[in-house]
Order: sequence, then C-alpha cells, then structure tokens
Amino acid sequence: MTNTAEAGADTQSRAIGQRSLGPDATLHPLYPVFTSGAPLRSQQRWNYPLEVAFDYSGVDPSVFHQPPLAGIARWAPLLPPLDPRLSFGEGGTPLIPISTAATASEIPVFLKDESRNPTWSHKDRLNLCTVSAAVRSGAKGVVVASSGNHGVSTAAYAARANLPCVVLTPSEISKTFLAMLRAYGACPVPVETAHRWPLVQAICERAGYHPTSNLTPFHTGHPFGPEGYKTIAYEIFLQFGRAVPAAVVVPTGYGEQLYGISKGFKELVTLGLCSNMPRMFSVEPATRGPLHRAVQTHEPMATVEAGETRQYSIACTASGYRGVLALEASRGMALTVDDASVCAAQATLGRQGIWQEFSACAAFAALPQILTQNLSGPIVLIGTSGGFKDPIEAETLPVVGPGFEHVADYVRQKSGIDLRS
Amino acid sequence: MTNTAEAGADTQSRAIGQRSLGPDATLHPLYPVFTSGAPLRSQQRWNYPLEVAFDYSGVDPSVFHQPPLAGIARWAPLLPPLDPRLSFGEGGTPLIPISTAATASEIPVFLKDESRNPTWSHKDRLNLCTVSAAVRSGAKGVVVASSGNHGVSTAAYAARANLPCVVLTPSEISKTFLAMLRAYGACPVPVETAHRWPLVQAICERAGYHPTSNLTPFHTGHPFGPEGYKTIAYEIFLQFGRAVPAAVVVPTGYGEQLYGISKGFKELVTLGLCSNMPRMFSVEPATRGPLHRAVQTHEPMATVEAGETRQYSIACTASGYRGVLALEASRGMALTVDDASVCAAQATLGRQGIWQEFSACAAFAALPQILTQNLSGPIVLIGTSGGFKDPIEAETLPVVGPGFEHVADYVRQKSGIDLRS
Repeated sequence: MTNTAEAGADTQSRAIGQRSLGPDATLHPLYPVFTSGAPLRSQQRWNYPLEVAFDYSGVDPSVFHQPPLAGIARWAPLLPPLDPRLSFGEGGTPLIPISTAATASEIPVFLKDESRNPTWSHKDRLNLCTVSAAVRSGAKGVVVASSGNHGVSTAAYAARANLPCVVLTPSEISKTFLAMLRAYGACPVPVETAHRWPLVQAICERAGYHPTSNLTPFHTGHPFGPEGYKTIAYEIFLQFGRAVPAAVVVPTGYGEQLYGISKGFKELVTLGLCSNMPRMFSVEPATRGPLHRAVQTHEPMATVEAGETRQYSIACTASGYRGVLALEASRGMALTVDDASVCAAQATLGRQGIWQEFSACAAFAALPQILTQNLSGPIVLIGTSGGFKDPIEAETLPVVGPGFEHVADYVRQKSGIDLRS
Repeated sequence: MTNTAEAGADTQSRAIGQRSLGPDATLHPLYPVFTSGAPLRSQQRWNYPLEVAFDYSGVDPSVFHQPPLAGIARWAPLLPPLDPRLSFGEGGTPLIPISTAATASEIPVFLKDESRNPTWSHKDRLNLCTVSAAVRSGAKGVVVASSGNHGVSTAAYAARANLPCVVLTPSEISKTFLAMLRAYGACPVPVETAHRWPLVQAICERAGYHPTSNLTPFHTGHPFGPEGYKTIAYEIFLQFGRAVPAAVVVPTGYGEQLYGISKGFKELVTLGLCSNMPRMFSVEPATRGPLHRAVQTHEPMATVEAGETRQYSIACTASGYRGVLALEASRGMALTVDDASVCAAQATLGRQGIWQEFSACAAFAALPQILTQNLSGPIVLIGTSGGFKDPIEAETLPVVGPGFEHVADYVRQKSGIDLRS
C-alpha cells in the first residue's frame, strides 16, 4: 500500500559487506560502519572510502518490474539495510523534458527534479541509508557538518528516527536552512570551517553519535550513503521504458551522487537489464573544481584554492575519490562552469517554470560542452534542489494602483509587457 | 515514456461542457471559458461557479489501471482539455504515514504531501488546467491575484506556455514568493486588496488576458481549475490499493481543492470503482472561517470579519460555494482551528521530518475534532505546501568553538542535548 513496495515484495537487503574503494578492494563486514574510511593497508597514504558490496545473485530481477514510485525502500534488496519506518516518500522524482529551443540541441534533454524529495533535495536518498545505519549501530544521536541540503536532510531523518541531531554549520547560513533545522528539532551549531571535521569526530567519539558527513582530510564520507543514489539510475532506466540515456550530468561536490548514480547503472548491466552505461559528466565551479583538477593531473585526489563562487553547494576545495572512479568507469568527463553561465542557466530554466537552486543549474550550464561530445541519445541533467534553498535578499514594495492605468504603466516600466496593446 | 501516460493511452478529454453549480445546473459549451461564473438566470442574485461536465460513458476504466505517477496528463479523459506541453510532473505525490504516537489515535493517519509538486504546492494541479484553458482561448497573457502559492504556480505554467504573466500581490509578500515570480518571468504588481478583483477584470477586458483566479464578489473562480484536484482522489484511491479512506481533511480557502477532491471520489463511485466516498472535512482559521459560517447559517455563501490569523493561505473572508456543495455531497463537516493549535501541529509534524507551510498544518490541527467522529477507516490530511513558503525572519549567529567543550556547552544551553552523557 501507499509508498511501500507491493505486498509480497522482497524487503531483504542483499548487502554482504563494506568494500574498500582502494586498489586492495578488501571486503569487510557490514558493521561496524566505517565512517572514517577503510582501515589503512600497508603502503597506503590515506584511508580510502568504502562502498557497500552486494550478492547480486540473490537479487530477483522482478524488483525492476515495479513502477518508479516514491519511497526508495522498494529497492531494498539493492540498498544497505534500511529502517523502513524512516522512509517517507523519497525518490520517485519526475523526469522533465527541457525545451529544445532552450538547449539549441536536437538531442532530447531531461531534468530529473530532485527538489520533489521530502526535504526538497537529492540528499534524502543518501540519508535514508545513513540514518538507518545510525539506528542499527545503536548511536546516541546523529551529527553532520553541512552548508545546507545535507544538514537539513540529515535532521529530518534523525527526527524520524527519534535521535537527537547536531548540525555544524557555517556562521553565515541561509535562513531557510536554519528554519528547517529548527523545524526538524536539530541543534544548529555555527563553527569555523577549519574546525568542523575535528568537531564531528569529537562528537562521535565522546558522545557516541553517528556521522552522516565526512570526517577525514582525504574525503571518505559515509559508506552506506551513496548507495541511496543508485535509485536515481533505477528510476531513469524505468522512466526511459527500460533503456538508458547517453549521458547523465551531475552537479558535483564530493562525488557521492555521481558515484551512486554510476554504480546504479553498472548494476543494471551486471543484472543483464541493459548492455551499456551512460557516460557520467561531473560539473564543478570553474574557480574551484578539485575533481576536474584530480582528473587533469591523473591523481586520486586534488585540492584547490577557495576561489570565489556562488555555487556554494558544490564548492568543495578537496575532491572525493568516488568521483574519479565514476568518471573512469563510465568514460565520463569532469567539466567546470563559471558563475555567469550558471546564472544564465538558472534564468533559462526559470522561464520553463523550473526554479532550481543556483548550484543545481551547473548541469544545464555545462550543456554546450556536452553537446560537443557527439552523443547518440538523450541527456539527463540531475536537478539537485529548488531555488528557495538559496539565500534570498529582502525587499519592500510600495503599492501600485488603484486603477488599470497605474497598473499598466507599472507593468510596462518593470517588465516591458504592454497591457494596452 | 517518462511522466506521460503509457504509449497507446487515451489522451482525449471526455469533457462535454461547463455546467453551472447553481440549482439550474445549466450545461454550457466548453468554450468560451466562463471566468466570471455562469450567466445569471432569472431570480438568481449572483453568478454561480461552474464545473466541467464529462461524458463518463466514454471513459475507459483502464485509465485506473496505471500507477499513480507524476504528470496529471495521464488522467486526460477525466480532465478538461490540456496542453500537454505544459505538464511537468505535477501530482503523483506520496502518502506519508503519520506516527500514531503523534496523533494519539488507533486510526491510521496519512499526509498527502503536495509540497512535492513543481512549484511545491497543490495549486499546480489546478493551474495545468487553467493555463491550458488560457492557451486554447488564445489569450494574450495570464493574470492572477494571489497571496502566494496560486500566484507562483500560475506564473510557472504561464512561463511554460510562453505567455506573459501579471501577478497582483499584497504589498507585504514573502521574499520567497517574490523570488519565484521573478524566476518564472512574471511581473509582480503590489496592489491594495480592495482593488485586486476589479484590476484583474480590467486586465482581462482591456489586455485580453486570461485570469486563473476569481474576479467576482460571490466567489466563482476558474471553471476548469478545480477539476485538476480530482487527481488527488484518483491517486489516493490507487495508493490505498483501490480503496478509499474514511475521511479526507483539507485546509480550505475558497473550497476549490475541497470540491475537486470530493468530485474525484464521486466519479470513482459513478464509474463503479468504489461503493462510497470519504467524508470531506474542511478546515479554516477560527478567527475567520466563512465556509464554517455558511454551513452554520445554512447559506450558500457567507462573509466574515478579517480576524487576525497566521493561516494566511486560507484566510478568506468570503466563502466559496463549492465548499458547501462538497460538504453536503460527502456528509462532511466544516471545522475551524486557532493559530495556537496550528503552531503545535506544525511543530509535531516537523519532529517527523515533515515541514509544512503554516496554513497546511490546519489539517493536522483539526485531528482531535475529527477523531470524535467514530470513523471506521484511515484519515488522509492534505499537506498543501512546504514550510519554506512562509516568511522567515532574519537571524545572525555568532560562531561557537573551536573545541568540543565549547560545542557541548552550546548544545546543552540551546537544546538540552547533553553530549557528555
């Protein structure tokens, strides 16, 4: 009924362990959850991130004979163990055709609108998995360091789990995010950026909290979280009538979403449901772009200067290794876009009734670069969040009126629209 | 593919005309659209609203053998004629179980989360229908008078229709709504409340614009719009596994949503798909509540004083006749709730990760009254919009840190959470 899988559906996770994404690919048990990366192997300079490993032979292909509705617990066999009480209609987001006039392209372009999630961003798919892990780990609470979407999403799932939640934020934080954190009962704690990861670690060690965000200088993040993003791939596959697009374009921070989507498509190939994967394209701000730098320098990781950018949701100065892996696995590319092109993209999408968060519009802004790639099929842009997540300036408006003439003058002056013609 | 109905699905509207909701029930042709209510009949004091009439014998019941996905053009036979290019994944919203601890009820309670729509409110279902009518009417543009959700939704669909859009707003308007109107390319025009309907009328008559909101003192509204809300009923029916809840609770302004949902269930009975309708419950602010007054006084319409309330999305001082009809047809009830109970409701829902707009929480606030009604089945609350639609006060936060002790002190002081225990 409702948002859950059909009666009789398979609700058992086929996860068999945590696997290091390092060259060793060591398989560890599922618990305890390695929230500071895989244990160091000899001759490794840093802890690698981990992913969840699955026994795919145990997955009934009928899981892909259901409609791509909301509630990602319907994908339970292919996700880490979930606490189903936490799920509340995340995912199942629509694929919106983008006007070809706007894209100047013959190739169809779609936007997968992740603003339709419970806290209105793609992070909800990740945090059903991370907070389920927190519950199963017997954590005393949940802690996260986040500039926005990740923090509020964590807070919502922590509230559903009846776990206290501490959110380390920058001192400058959008009022919308602050209001959301308070509504969900979390405790926002503004701290200096340099202090956030050590503080997250301290709160975990000393208060027994479970972190949903990264703790380590070489980004590792939560091992279970990115698995939630595979559901984006599953839905796209079903929304294309059991086919895959030529390209998926992802506004990229640490590469967790990029990797998760890529892995989802790889699983479809493994399960024999399609023969190839889309090419993955990451998009970062031109004044930062650590993944782009890592790819350029053939390194597993790079750090960059904190150049000015308004694309604050994807303004990482250190890359995530998952990003490198996702691009290699999919013959993808790392792209960057400047703020001016993102601004233009946001305006173009707005004129189609689609108001996306500024950083989310980086995907559309990268289209001209992608269209040089001679793709032979559709392009899907991941629309990560809604425009209301951005800080909005205050404004007061003096009234116009009372008559039509006053209004007609005002409208012509403000917008060029001529009501008298 | 994607959000549209299956290939081969029936896309032909079975609408046959506009029918007056007055006692005469006169059937008029579908066009021209009567945006100022039905033509006056003898001995009628006011123009009645109209609905769209359908030839139900032409509706293939297989339309209800599809999953309740987003994109309400899938319900085309039961909707007024749509321009399918305008549709962008509206509807298909999830049904979220509400914790029984929170409801103090054995009866299951669900929230249908309309914040998952393209402009994050239920109004999108209405405006696919109204703006489709504007396009088919050859309108030069679209005009609307709205305090919020209706205006931004209209603006988004007008943008998709490539029609200019003028939105008459109050002088005090939330920055989020203003930002949305601008993003969608609409022209916001702040006017005095008393001037708005005459100005909408003038803009229609003199500039050839099509109105998506009401023009008349006795509320009539757009005849096609409320039909879009029937899709909420269809989805609920499918989400309950082809069954209906005992009650549906609707935060109510002019009663368009209340009526549309009610009509949708009535159609399911007409089509032989279920044997009875849910009882409809309207909820309004206790300091206003014109529908409640109309029902109490056995009148088709009532007006009330503009009492203070924070429930601004449902703060009408004049009732809509559709509301009276919906409650009569469903053995429903008109309820009111005060701001304090709505505030408590918003906090309770927030603790389950559900941040609804203040006015939307009126439905949950009405639960104690509804639970006295000896219902024998589930209750569905309509969650009309997200909390970020409300005005949010500014705030600056001085940083905390750098050490764990600073953070632990701060957290204990702010939230009572003890990280040291």
